[in-house]
Amino acid sequence: MWDIELMKQSELSLSRQLFHHIRNLIMDNRLTAGEALPSSRYLAKDLAVSRSTVTEAYDMLIAEGYVVSRQGAPTRVKEGLCLNKVSHKIIVNEIHESVESFPIDFKTGQPDISTFPYYVWKQMLDKSQNKLLERDFGYFNTAGYTPLREEISQWLFRMRGITVDADNVFITTGTTQAINILVHMLYREGMPFAVEDPCHRAIIELLKLRGAAYTGFPADTNGIITDLLDRRSYSAIYVTPSHQFPLGGILPAKRRVELIRYAREQGTYIIEDDYDSEFRYTGAPISPLYSMDSERVIYSGTFSKIMYPAIRIGFVLLPPSLKKQWLHTRKYFDVQNPITEQAALAEFLYQRKLDKYVQKLSHLYNEKRNTLSDSLAQNFKGKERLLGDRAGLHLILQIEGKSFEEDFIHKSQSLGIRAYPVEEYCLKKGLHSDKLMLGYGHLSIKDIPKKVRVLSDFIKSYGPSGCDHWDKSRGNRL
Amino acid sequence: MWDIELMKQSELSLSRQLFHHIRNLIMDNRLTAGEALPSSRYLAKDLAVSRSTVTEAYDMLIAEGYVVSRQGAPTRVKEGLCLNKVSHKIIVNEIHESVESFPIDFKTGQPDISTFPYYVWKQMLDKSQNKLLERDFGYFNTAGYTPLREEISQWLFRMRGITVDADNVFITTGTTQAINILVHMLYREGMPFAVEDPCHRAIIELLKLRGAAYTGFPADTNGIITDLLDRRSYSAIYVTPSHQFPLGGILPAKRRVELIRYAREQGTYIIEDDYDSEFRYTGAPISPLYSMDSERVIYSGTFSKIMYPAIRIGFVLLPPSLKKQWLHTRKYFDVQNPITEQAALAEFLYQRKLDKYVQKLSHLYNEKRNTLSDSLAQNFKGKERLLGDRAGLHLILQIEGKSFEEDFIHKSQSLGIRAYPVEEYCLKKGLHSDKLMLGYGHLSIKDIPKKVRVLSDFIKSYGPSGCDHWDKSRGNRL
Repeated sequence: MWDIELMKQSELSLSRQLFHHIRNLIMDNRLTAGEALPSSRYLAKDLAVSRSTVTEAYDMLIAEGYVVSRQGAPTRVKEGLCLNKVSHKIIVNEIHESVESFPIDFKTGQPDISTFPYYVWKQMLDKSQNKLLERDFGYFNTAGYTPLREEISQWLFRMRGITVDADNVFITTGTTQAINILVHMLYREGMPFAVEDPCHRAIIELLKLRGAAYTGFPADTNGIITDLLDRRSYSAIYVTPSHQFPLGGILPAKRRVELIRYAREQGTYIIEDDYDSEFRYTGAPISPLYSMDSERVIYSGTFSKIMYPAIRIGFVLLPPSLKKQWLHTRKYFDVQNPITEQAALAEFLYQRKLDKYVQKLSHLYNEKRNTLSDSLAQNFKGKERLLGDRAGLHLILQIEGKSFEEDFIHKSQSLGIRAYPVEEYCLKKGLHSDKLMLGYGHLSIKDIPKKVRVLSDFIKSYGPSGCDHWDKSRGNRL
Repeated sequence: MWDIELMKQSELSLSRQLFHHIRNLIMDNRLTAGEALPSSRYLAKDLAVSRSTVTEAYDMLIAEGYVVSRQGAPTRVKEGLCLNKVSHKIIVNEIHESVESFPIDFKTGQPDISTFPYYVWKQMLDKSQNKLLERDFGYFNTAGYTPLREEISQWLFRMRGITVDADNVFITTGTTQAINILVHMLYREGMPFAVEDPCHRAIIELLKLRGAAYTGFPADTNGIITDLLDRRSYSAIYVTPSHQFPLGGILPAKRRVELIRYAREQGTYIIEDDYDSEFRYTGAPISPLYSMDSERVIYSGTFSKIMYPAIRIGFVLLPPSLKKQWLHTRKYFDVQNPITEQAALAEFLYQRKLDKYVQKLSHLYNEKRNTLSDSLAQNFKGKERLLGDRAGLHLILQIEGKSFEEDFIHKSQSLGIRAYPVEEYCLKKGLHSDKLMLGYGHLSIKDIPKKVRVLSDFIKSYGPSGCDHWDKSRGNRL
């Protein structure tokens, strides 16, 4: 009857399956208003199931109001339940995120996760869970897990010389979330965000998504040019002073002071994104702006770049004036971070495992950086200039006379090479077209020389000034 | 010299401490532009530290541009570095989130986390970590951990009879985030959100925070009254059909059909918040709206209420038309969920541990519910009416003639009692003032009778109609 086929091996009970079938018949108007259902005895026999299966299904239909049943009368379909079926002509746009993979990819922001001590991490995960109290599994942890806030405060003192009370440390799920919440909190109509130009594209995308206006201020190889800051009102100034993204400059003390002074005079906030400050290869680590003025500067840090991206733990150091609003906003954004990773990270920090790992990583990244610089020098024989290579996980290759723009991207990608023109990050175009960003954090040392050779050969052959400067062999190589 | 005191036992190196001291002197203008620093030899002797400590500190000052050094000349303070100190007159508003605790608290949305099988969870956590691949620790998991999406799809089939492909399951950090992202995606100026009236306050707060307009549609004890939906344009309709919050109604089939039909005609989306559908005590579980139209309905579920709140894992089932935009938005909101809990939950589901636990919880909550109903009946002797008690973790107590409003809240709280007037959740006031919401999920069965007695005694004594109806003893009790 009704072409119903019930599956005995299904995890869904027979009665529930039957209920679904009949409900669909009603909604498709194949069983119409007022129509009587067969008796449960009859249907049970017809479908070769127990009678209780059918009565249960009927009870569900009654409970949800699809049918009505009166003592002594057959169960009948209710009025007004038919739905015209939607035609299933949906084009199922299979959305695979575009993680296109290139044999030679100098992508940035990708830490080397192959060296992460997963085994140690698992031990910390295990150990930390035993320290949790029942209340840690409840709500009301919007600011973050207290022991983690304390460990981060100490970690910042050890790593960055920052003196900050754990009360000012607010756990986030990373820099993206931090900026998202801050944009929500600080943005005022008619007051754009000031950003460095060039700037990280994710920041620009985020501002666009939130419908927030923004203005770029030129950065040079030393970071944002503070002389050019004008007297307009800005909702906040977003900067990357310890390793300007993408140019790699380290903001000098004079500009730091000017920036702070500017923020004070204008009554605006500085958002200091200290995204890869842990890796500095020459000179001592630079003190963050936050240490100069903890009332005007919001400091944003993350563990994605030094541990692994999917940990989703970062933090902000907030001026007292913003703490209350932060908690209110975070509460209605996503309430809080989950507890498990927070506890594990607190333990990882407490046992100084991260200190050890960062030290190891620094050596490793430095070696990668040196290999990359050497390989570039070997291939370009002094025609190259390297910028922003004193810190972080990427550097800038500048080749005078070359023009790295959209056409370069297409042609290089068609050969399986991916490098990142700085122009792509510029709001004002045409100033940095001879610069290419090369990320090396994720590359293996062994592979760097050959990858650089392929890239170099392509660059030499590329563009109007390709033929003059370089040796003649390149034509044969590609 | 300079009143500098270095701490030998500090985790910060001596040179870094010295660097900080001198930098502060410069910024406070106690060392002025052009002033010469003492020779490293002299300062080392003065401070009783090694000479290399001082030269390291000087190098840091040079690197950051605080001082300049020329061959054969003393190191001097640079120009333009002085910052006037901010007066530290900040009133440190210690922000403790208001988790005021009352001896007798019938709060809602609080699951009983004391019964959670933490030991089993820890086993799953442990086991699941061994299954993770290196790439699971990277980025590009915006939609969620694939095995978890698959397990949720199967879980929904077992628990709710929903047939949904894992491709349509998108992991969230809970309902708050889901609604936040959906508001961002769907809200259009001039098109308010339609919500039920009364409605969960967190939803209203979230809409306010996002600056989104909203309109309330009356709900009765059966849920939203679909007859009253008008033909204006709405950005989306937010509903809780399986246990209307707060009234507790279960939306009947006829209204479900009308709601779907309305959404189709108006080309709008329905957001179905199925927040505590797992607990239904009488009758079969109600089929979600999503099963009736997976192109117009966005289904939002969460594990906070059946496992523990700090897990921060929920999910949405999205119509194909919204998947791409969802991924783009989530990417710039907070990128993705962390991996650890996702993997553990996938294992927990795979091993059917959650099925078992929910079954256990259902029995437990049902017992609590019965104890609560019985206690209320005993105290109010038929003068009470209970609503919305067929499902979920709260019920509504209606006492005709009583008026539960702000004054009630103040007076009851001063006695250490916390109950929740439905009026507090109403956009249009005055319709539900005789109703009180009582959450029981977190209460222990043993305590319920005495807590109800104290509450009842207070209610009887409270308000204008207090004296007539009740026995005379109440006056003595409070």
